[in-house]
Amino acid sequence: MNAPRNSPSPSTSSYQNAPTRSVSVHGENFAYRELGPEDGVPLILLVHLAGVLDNWDPRVVDGLAARRRVIAFDNRGVGGSSGSTPDTIEAMARDAVLFIRALGFDQVDLLGLSMGGFVAQVVAAEEPRLVRKVILAGTGPAGGPGIDKVPALTIQATLKGTLTRQDPKLSLFFTDTAGGRQAGRALLERLKERTHDRDKDISLPAFRAQLKAIKRWGRQAPSDLSEIRQPVLVANGENDRMVPSPNTLDLAARLPRSELVPLYPDAGHGGIFQYHEEFVTRALGFLES
Amino acid sequence: MNAPRNSPSPSTSSYQNAPTRSVSVHGENFAYRELGPEDGVPLILLVHLAGVLDNWDPRVVDGLAARRRVIAFDNRGVGGSSGSTPDTIEAMARDAVLFIRALGFDQVDLLGLSMGGFVAQVVAAEEPRLVRKVILAGTGPAGGPGIDKVPALTIQATLKGTLTRQDPKLSLFFTDTAGGRQAGRALLERLKERTHDRDKDISLPAFRAQLKAIKRWGRQAPSDLSEIRQPVLVANGENDRMVPSPNTLDLAARLPRSELVPLYPDAGHGGIFQYHEEFVTRALGFLES
Repeated sequence: MNAPRNSPSPSTSSYQNAPTRSVSVHGENFAYRELGPEDGVPLILLVHLAGVLDNWDPRVVDGLAARRRVIAFDNRGVGGSSGSTPDTIEAMARDAVLFIRALGFDQVDLLGLSMGGFVAQVVAAEEPRLVRKVILAGTGPAGGPGIDKVPALTIQATLKGTLTRQDPKLSLFFTDTAGGRQAGRALLERLKERTHDRDKDISLPAFRAQLKAIKRWGRQAPSDLSEIRQPVLVANGENDRMVPSPNTLDLAARLPRSELVPLYPDAGHGGIFQYHEEFVTRALGFLES
Repeated sequence: MNAPRNSPSPSTSSYQNAPTRSVSVHGENFAYRELGPEDGVPLILLVHLAGVLDNWDPRVVDGLAARRRVIAFDNRGVGGSSGSTPDTIEAMARDAVLFIRALGFDQVDLLGLSMGGFVAQVVAAEEPRLVRKVILAGTGPAGGPGIDKVPALTIQATLKGTLTRQDPKLSLFFTDTAGGRQAGRALLERLKERTHDRDKDISLPAFRAQLKAIKRWGRQAPSDLSEIRQPVLVANGENDRMVPSPNTLDLAARLPRSELVPLYPDAGHGGIFQYHEEFVTRALGFLES
């Protein structure tokens, strides 16, 4: 029932070497990579602001793919996916559903990171039969405190990063401590491990559309999280300055069937990458329970 | 008469090794580097937006310093200079005069690039006895077309540069042609030649203050360039997208004693760096005529 009808079977052993494929969704090509065993409910990864296929920590993907079929894809108009990037989370959620159905799946699990977590919440609420379980990392509910500041914070960090010749991801995803800086540099190195067939970077117009979508999500009226009836695992670093960590606690408190991973110490928005071993173990346990 | 009263004599042979010095200006320390023979009228370099001591092309400084005493300095609150960065060109001009006088000079030449060219115009008009000759590169008059767009263009290029992992200077200072890209990469390499005692990067607040100053300059009423009575050499690339090249032609047309270097072909805002040999020859000829 969960076997895809129109995608070749996963055959590679690591995300570093996973070929980039594409599937047509209403005339647009959505780029994706998949990895892991063919059986079981596939896990769809929903990526963060500006993220493309190469922005997933290979340790997290490989770790999850050791036991689950894992599929990462590019949002419409981002990286290798064609089309025009939507400027609302709701439209991104519709795209995610179309992509999942285009691959022939009728039941999936979701892992949404940051903006991808916003998308995951909408998909889970709108498609209770399609979505079995959800993992939300570094994210928050509509109208969550500080989320509408993500665009300004991102632009500020980008300008500062350019002036200091430092990747803005270090300050946005990691704590400004010895441990946080070390974890950030380690992630940047892991993200470079794939050297062939890398994804295209996001374009400036697509980036702007996503910024607009995030600001809107942050300013939206709080959503009724009781509409999400699936089991949800919630994780984050204890000191997330992008989507402030209280949002994670709020999700865990208001989602009817949630499990909260104790907030990762000395970690921020990229907590699940910084603690990839712990996160993978916990996520697999959650998905397989 | 032009010997400084309180600065050690220049002794190094290249800008790459020039020590960073500082001089107290009304309680703030202004960082500077100097190079070249002690005699003659010194040439003060006025740097561009976000520029610090390490942003001057060493080929241009070394070339000029082969025959002239050359002094580069950090604006107030930028790089190694203490204090709070002003948000008007006029205040930067007052700082430049204070710095020049603090070094004990009573006559100097000026080379202003981009924002530094705005500053040079104000200093030249306000201090007709202090300033002997002026070189204006990649710059324009107050109220010049497109100058108020420099902040937006810079931020856009910075965001895009981060998304594409490319130094925004490539798109801001050079043409998007094979020749322009090659010249840009070559400059970025030259700017890395100095490996010890590098300057501090500009801070985000100082950068913002400069953006504000540039926007104000761009929106100011056109200044009366006939107030600048000194000989002025005007240079730029033919395709400057930061301070659009027509501004260069306008300067040459309206300055009473101007010489226009034919606009450098296939070059932009960084034209004098791209054509450093030609520029140095022409600038020395102008200063020594």
